[in-house]
Amino acid sequence: MTVVKSPLPEPARQVTHDALQSTLVDLLGLSLIGKQAHWNVVGPRFRSVHLQLDELVAAARGYADTVAERAAALGLPPDGRPETIASAFTLPGPKDGWLRDEEAVRVIAETLGTAIARLRERIAATEEPDPVTQDLLIGITAELEKQRWMFEAENISG
Amino acid sequence: MTVVKSPLPEPARQVTHDALQSTLVDLLGLSLIGKQAHWNVVGPRFRSVHLQLDELVAAARGYADTVAERAAALGLPPDGRPETIASAFTLPGPKDGWLRDEEAVRVIAETLGTAIARLRERIAATEEPDPVTQDLLIGITAELEKQRWMFEAENISG
Amino acid sequence: MTVVKSPLPEPARQVTHDALQSTLVDLLGLSLIGKQAHWNVVGPRFRSVHLQLDELVAAARGYADTVAERAAALGLPPDGRPETIASAFTLPGPKDGWLRDEEAVRVIAETLGTAIARLRERIAATEEPDPVTQDLLIGITAELEKQRWMFEAENISG
Amino acid sequence: MTVVKSPLPEPARQVTHDALQSTLVDLLGLSLIGKQAHWNVVGPRFRSVHLQLDELVAAARGYADTVAERAAALGLPPDGRPETIASAFTLPGPKDGWLRDEEAVRVIAETLGTAIARLRERIAATEEPDPVTQDLLIGITAELEKQRWMFEAENISG
Amino acid sequence: MTVVKSPLPEPARQVTHDALQSTLVDLLGLSLIGKQAHWNVVGPRFRSVHLQLDELVAAARGYADTVAERAAALGLPPDGRPETIASAFTLPGPKDGWLRDEEAVRVIAETLGTAIARLRERIAATEEPDPVTQDLLIGITAELEKQRWMFEAENISG
Amino acid sequence: MTVVKSPLPEPARQVTHDALQSTLVDLLGLSLIGKQAHWNVVGPRFRSVHLQLDELVAAARGYADTVAERAAALGLPPDGRPETIASAFTLPGPKDGWLRDEEAVRVIAETLGTAIARLRERIAATEEPDPVTQDLLIGITAELEKQRWMFEAENISG
Amino acid sequence: MTVVKSPLPEPARQVTHDALQSTLVDLLGLSLIGKQAHWNVVGPRFRSVHLQLDELVAAARGYADTVAERAAALGLPPDGRPETIASAFTLPGPKDGWLRDEEAVRVIAETLGTAIARLRERIAATEEPDPVTQDLLIGITAELEKQRWMFEAENISG
Amino acid sequence: MTVVKSPLPEPARQVTHDALQSTLVDLLGLSLIGKQAHWNVVGPRFRSVHLQLDELVAAARGYADTVAERAAALGLPPDGRPETIASAFTLPGPKDGWLRDEEAVRVIAETLGTAIARLRERIAATEEPDPVTQDLLIGITAELEKQRWMFEAENISG
Amino acid sequence: MTVVKSPLPEPARQVTHDALQSTLVDLLGLSLIGKQAHWNVVGPRFRSVHLQLDELVAAARGYADTVAERAAALGLPPDGRPETIASAFTLPGPKDGWLRDEEAVRVIAETLGTAIARLRERIAATEEPDPVTQDLLIGITAELEKQRWMFEAENISG
Amino acid sequence: MTVVKSPLPEPARQVTHDALQSTLVDLLGLSLIGKQAHWNVVGPRFRSVHLQLDELVAAARGYADTVAERAAALGLPPDGRPETIASAFTLPGPKDGWLRDEEAVRVIAETLGTAIARLRERIAATEEPDPVTQDLLIGITAELEKQRWMFEAENISG
Amino acid sequence: MTVVKSPLPEPARQVTHDALQSTLVDLLGLSLIGKQAHWNVVGPRFRSVHLQLDELVAAARGYADTVAERAAALGLPPDGRPETIASAFTLPGPKDGWLRDEEAVRVIAETLGTAIARLRERIAATEEPDPVTQDLLIGITAELEKQRWMFEAENISG
Amino acid sequence: MTVVKSPLPEPARQVTHDALQSTLVDLLGLSLIGKQAHWNVVGPRFRSVHLQLDELVAAARGYADTVAERAAALGLPPDGRPETIASAFTLPGPKDGWLRDEEAVRVIAETLGTAIARLRERIAATEEPDPVTQDLLIGITAELEKQRWMFEAENISG
Repeated sequence: MTVVKSPLPEPARQVTHDALQSTLVDLLGLSLIGKQAHWNVVGPRFRSVHLQLDELVAAARGYADTVAERAAALGLPPDGRPETIASAFTLPGPKDGWLRDEEAVRVIAETLGTAIARLRERIAATEEPDPVTQDLLIGITAELEKQRWMFEAENISG
Repeated sequence: MTVVKSPLPEPARQVTHDALQSTLVDLLGLSLIGKQAHWNVVGPRFRSVHLQLDELVAAARGYADTVAERAAALGLPPDGRPETIASAFTLPGPKDGWLRDEEAVRVIAETLGTAIARLRERIAATEEPDPVTQDLLIGITAELEKQRWMFEAENISG
Repeated sequence: MTVVKSPLPEPARQVTHDALQSTLVDLLGLSLIGKQAHWNVVGPRFRSVHLQLDELVAAARGYADTVAERAAALGLPPDGRPETIASAFTLPGPKDGWLRDEEAVRVIAETLGTAIARLRERIAATEEPDPVTQDLLIGITAELEKQRWMFEAENISG
Repeated sequence: MTVVKSPLPEPARQVTHDALQSTLVDLLGLSLIGKQAHWNVVGPRFRSVHLQLDELVAAARGYADTVAERAAALGLPPDGRPETIASAFTLPGPKDGWLRDEEAVRVIAETLGTAIARLRERIAATEEPDPVTQDLLIGITAELEKQRWMFEAENISG
Repeated sequence: MTVVKSPLPEPARQVTHDALQSTLVDLLGLSLIGKQAHWNVVGPRFRSVHLQLDELVAAARGYADTVAERAAALGLPPDGRPETIASAFTLPGPKDGWLRDEEAVRVIAETLGTAIARLRERIAATEEPDPVTQDLLIGITAELEKQRWMFEAENISG
Repeated sequence: MTVVKSPLPEPARQVTHDALQSTLVDLLGLSLIGKQAHWNVVGPRFRSVHLQLDELVAAARGYADTVAERAAALGLPPDGRPETIASAFTLPGPKDGWLRDEEAVRVIAETLGTAIARLRERIAATEEPDPVTQDLLIGITAELEKQRWMFEAENISG
Repeated sequence: MTVVKSPLPEPARQVTHDALQSTLVDLLGLSLIGKQAHWNVVGPRFRSVHLQLDELVAAARGYADTVAERAAALGLPPDGRPETIASAFTLPGPKDGWLRDEEAVRVIAETLGTAIARLRERIAATEEPDPVTQDLLIGITAELEKQRWMFEAENISG
Repeated sequence: MTVVKSPLPEPARQVTHDALQSTLVDLLGLSLIGKQAHWNVVGPRFRSVHLQLDELVAAARGYADTVAERAAALGLPPDGRPETIASAFTLPGPKDGWLRDEEAVRVIAETLGTAIARLRERIAATEEPDPVTQDLLIGITAELEKQRWMFEAENISG
Repeated sequence: MTVVKSPLPEPARQVTHDALQSTLVDLLGLSLIGKQAHWNVVGPRFRSVHLQLDELVAAARGYADTVAERAAALGLPPDGRPETIASAFTLPGPKDGWLRDEEAVRVIAETLGTAIARLRERIAATEEPDPVTQDLLIGITAELEKQRWMFEAENISG
Repeated sequence: MTVVKSPLPEPARQVTHDALQSTLVDLLGLSLIGKQAHWNVVGPRFRSVHLQLDELVAAARGYADTVAERAAALGLPPDGRPETIASAFTLPGPKDGWLRDEEAVRVIAETLGTAIARLRERIAATEEPDPVTQDLLIGITAELEKQRWMFEAENISG
Repeated sequence: MTVVKSPLPEPARQVTHDALQSTLVDLLGLSLIGKQAHWNVVGPRFRSVHLQLDELVAAARGYADTVAERAAALGLPPDGRPETIASAFTLPGPKDGWLRDEEAVRVIAETLGTAIARLRERIAATEEPDPVTQDLLIGITAELEKQRWMFEAENISG
Repeated sequence: MTVVKSPLPEPARQVTHDALQSTLVDLLGLSLIGKQAHWNVVGPRFRSVHLQLDELVAAARGYADTVAERAAALGLPPDGRPETIASAFTLPGPKDGWLRDEEAVRVIAETLGTAIARLRERIAATEEPDPVTQDLLIGITAELEKQRWMFEAENISG
């Protein structure tokens, strides 16, 4: 069922679709991982990391919404169902159970690093097909790189 | 690793853990399903359903947080990772792609009906082991029953 | 016309319906009585009682809404029409015309006392059929008992 | 008991009293009718009508307060007790039970039409006796006419 | 120096000027009297009267501003200097020193009664010359009559 | 297509329609003119005039909305399309390009003067047919006269 | 009169001027069209479409302001006068009189589609001459494409 | 002096009184202890613990108020005077002087553990006598258990 | 009638009374003068001076309240009645009628200069008798000196 | 353990410590006394006194925090533990049980009078050793003297 | 010490570092210059320029923060120390002492012009190495060009 | 150019000028140093110290503004230009590059200690010449001493 007309011609549309759909899965998964660490973190830095993770979750959720609605605006129905995340999400995440604070910080910094590398590829890929989508991906990258710095800076051991 | 001491004795603890962990999975899944429908709904009632679904998602997210933190407060690390949702979430949900408004309303009302039936079982199960957890589940049920009514009332055809 | 499906089985449904419908009538009547006194009170304590009554009205209106929507959520259409209040409302209230401040305080305290006694019966009656409704009635009772104390405390003569 | 002195001479006072007291009854009844429809409406437009009715109720309550306090300011104790509404309220309203959305919109538009016609008579009647009261009635009419338009515009069938 | 052109022809302009200038003096004087009572009131009702008087002052100041700017808008420079109030203000006011609460309420109610009577004359006088100014005076009268009722209602002795 | 029933009988309806439709065109045109000057003003008073013009635009837009919705409420579909403004708008406005501050102030004061004169005619014309519409026109006139005074006061040269 | 110095060299300046001036006219016209539909829409979806159109108008007005001020910042006086819109605005719009809801949604979606196609041409044209202006046009396109999706999604018939 | 009538019969009243009065003393003492630690904490986690303690104090103060007013609403005058706290408060607390951060966290977690155990006994004791009071104690327990988890999670050493 | 006990012994009390009463008269007069200029200012700087004067009036009114309540707190009934201001206020002020902007700025700067000189004498006079009053006078002086600078800075001619 | 370095030399430090520690105890005790009266007051002025006492408690709590943090800033660990208040607090306070309104007002006014007398001694004592602390004590005195006036003014019998 | 890993490869990193570090120095210096003019400006336009400069300072400070944190996010420690600004800041600025309003406006417009020219070079330089940084520089340029226009427009002499 | 008249006689003026100008330089330098540490801090306490430093910067910036405007109010043009800070700022600060958290805390505590010692000298110096300025310096000292305590308390090693 083709429902919403797309302002993009075909090849551009497919490239943009891939970039947005894979970003959506990364961001939804990131929001689940962030909450998992938010709830299970323990250690002397509990409160600080607990609060910091909620800011990451808020950013991930906000951008997931923008990305999904961007896809819809291009006539591309986004897919963020539990089964899709289950099969398509591949970023590293925390293990089950309580999580030491330095481990939480380390794993989130690593996850963000991987997510950022993928976003930079998608920025390059969408420049020609759709500069509007590229601009959105640039904005997400700026925010995630800022958050990654904060987790990295926090994980410098004495 | 037993990290946070529990104010509950053992058998009560296990029953409460089951009730909270399964409620957490239901609520996280519900928040993903709600967003999926929020993005993909089409039809004359698009705007109304689109907005209504976001209120459902906000409620589901807020309660998921409270439920997970309640588990942690009882010394029970909650599990809301993507892979856990993938394997444990069993409520019905929308299919892939654009979703007609009446179908969106119908599937959400059905999902809520199933979730509510499970919550009422957990209310009964936690009365003795932990009235504090029971009180939380009662509050969630009240909200989801209100939301279900609104989706049902909206789905009466002419 | 059965429109909204009920999560409650039949006998429980009838008991809960009675509790909610009679509470709705009490609260709507209370909001009218409270406004009547709010407008007609005179005497040295005019301003204080005038303002206090508006807080009572706000509470009564808010709970009336919650109670009516709880009934709807259970598949029970609530009835708050003028003619229903006219025939079903039986709490004591102020007479016509200007109302001395101590008389206003006395009659409201008496009305609240009667309303609370009825609510406590409904709390007992709904415990088994629907703990979610019981929890709502407990919350209303707590608020009305607090308001009753304030009117009683204010009516101690020198 | 004559308590609050009136700034109006006698014949003007009686005309104004009649205009304000009957407007008060109309507005209080309207707020009850509006809530009744707010709770019992069903159909595809449920959410839209549900929200719209709450704006009507808020307007009716706010103006009822202003009208009653205007009466008091003129030395005329207003009467908004349940029994007064029961005997004096004559605007059409919804029947008991669930209410189809187009029926809810139709009955409210009709009620507003009747209320407006009466208000326009009172505007004419109070011009000489009390231009201050007339100005208040003009303001109420402007708001109710705006709300009536919205309900009417919504009820145009395809 | 004629500086701001007036949208009113000459005779209308003079009548309107008189109405606005004398209302300005009444309102400025009222704001000073209200503050004087606000500071000097004593007695069991101190707090209630103290707060009520500040609402009167806020209303008087707000309307003084509107009245003066209305005069300016008509090309009529308003005069609210201390010496003008000293010579032109004639409403009754409190004496020097501490002021018993019932005396404060009584004197303010009396002052408002006098101010209202003058405003009603000006409403009649400005109907033909400038309905815009009349509408403003009607609004001020409505507010002062409401405030007068509250002071009167409060001064009913037991 | 007669869609929304009118609370006004026929001759009154036509007079009121003319008053509202021509006021709508004046206000929409005024909002465009105000923005044009807001963007193109230059000179030492740039910032002050730039900000002042935005307040005028906000007022014009707000009143245009109220006027158009008042027409709709009377069953009279308002017309604010670009082509209607193009053919019906006749108030003076600024020329193309940069605009010196004193020239901006002068032309806006002149435009407001013309608009006010027309509004005063419509106030007289609508008194009998519809006092509710008249009251709205009085309110608009009060605001525009206040704004005109401010522009005039600002344009007095040294 | 060259007043504000431009940070752009000549050929770049002309291209950027054309892009901004034509975008300004489109946005101002769009805001007028949006309001016209906002006031004249009728049908079962009245309230939903009425509110949605106001969000479109708010976006169009906000971007018109940004675009005009961007032109000024480049030393290019923007032109948004009624006569300019009359002669330069060419997007499709609604006809005179009441407007059925599905027709309102259809015409706005079509208008937005045309506006977006023009914006995408201007994004390409300004990339070299002024990336700052291009970035602004990208932001406008993202918003209008999102709004177009919502109108399109709403217009899918059963 | 029996002043405020109680809605509870006698034996229920005494049990409820004991539960509320002892909870009041625990909460007031907790608020003093929390502030003491808030002011005297030192160490690398100073800022984090300093802020966290203020959230505990805010919760303790808020619940103390609710508990005391609940007692008053039941006709039971609450006692929170310094001398009562001095003689009746028995929860463990910090020693005099500067307090190392891990010691502050440890002592507060221990205090909360003791307070929670007592609250759970009172929840059991008040179930029959007064479910309204029980509901309040359940709410307090949920909050204190959440706060205890956060302090415990923070005190896990490396 | 000595009503409120004073925390000050007699000679200190008299000195403090004089300082506060004369400051009160200065501030009330200043607020009247500031409004007079606010309404009557004309000239190219109209808007800027008009707004600036309202900030002065707000400061003067706020401090007048604090000063009068400080007097009351010391058992000294403050006197701010119209007749007192008429006889005791001696600061320079604007003449009747329209007021050129530079003249408005000049006269206010001069008035503030005189008021400040008097305040500095009272700061010296109250140091021993009542450092609490002195601290209040210091705060007023800081604010008035800041405002005077702004008016002075604005009055430098080209 | 000397932890935080002090900016004060030794003798000054001891005087300042005594002033701050005794003020802390007075303020904490005052906040407990204020709440006790807030909960137990009865009589016609209940509502007014109930609200007024909460403002006193808010002020006392806020200043207690500032005073304790000032001590810490000077390297002096503050002591606000329950046992310290029990042994060091000596201001008069209300007896156990319900408290008549005039008695509540009387005892609080007396308590404030005693607290103020002590504060004035500490203002004198800290002038030389630490003007920063003196300035804080002056601010507290100003507030408490204002509150005392209000309670005194309220306690004037008829 | 390499602490925070960079998502950029080496040559790109150096170019981006230079662009960000020099922009940081420009913005910090601009915020100091803006405040200097804000405090020292005199002349008839004092208030207008004084306020406008604070908006420039707020923008400069906000962007300085974003730029510095962007550098940190790229693993490049930013340098904004006083000595760095002293040696590296080269934009023109105001001289010492009072500053005539037209001189303040002129010097700030000139400073902004220079800063903008440099920013446009950095936009070109960072397009390939890091589009995320380029996007940030584009945003800063848009804001500074808007502010420059306003200062330029304000400085057109009569 | 002497522009703003000073309320202070000559010798007092010079002393006050020195105190204010040197405080201005200290505060502006402090705000730069605080931001430098805010951006470059790394280590486990990163987030806590990062946020705490921003509160210091906000305080320093706010006081710098007040101090500079106080100088202007005394007719003394303040000097906060980059070159002035470069030559006059002498407080210790962080070195270039990443900064370990304990080092950041240590250097800021040291800087604050030095700044406070200088402020206390200026408090003594300004007591006679200008108590208004002294009061401002006292307020700054109170705030900086509070901040210094927090950094010191945080730097106690285990």
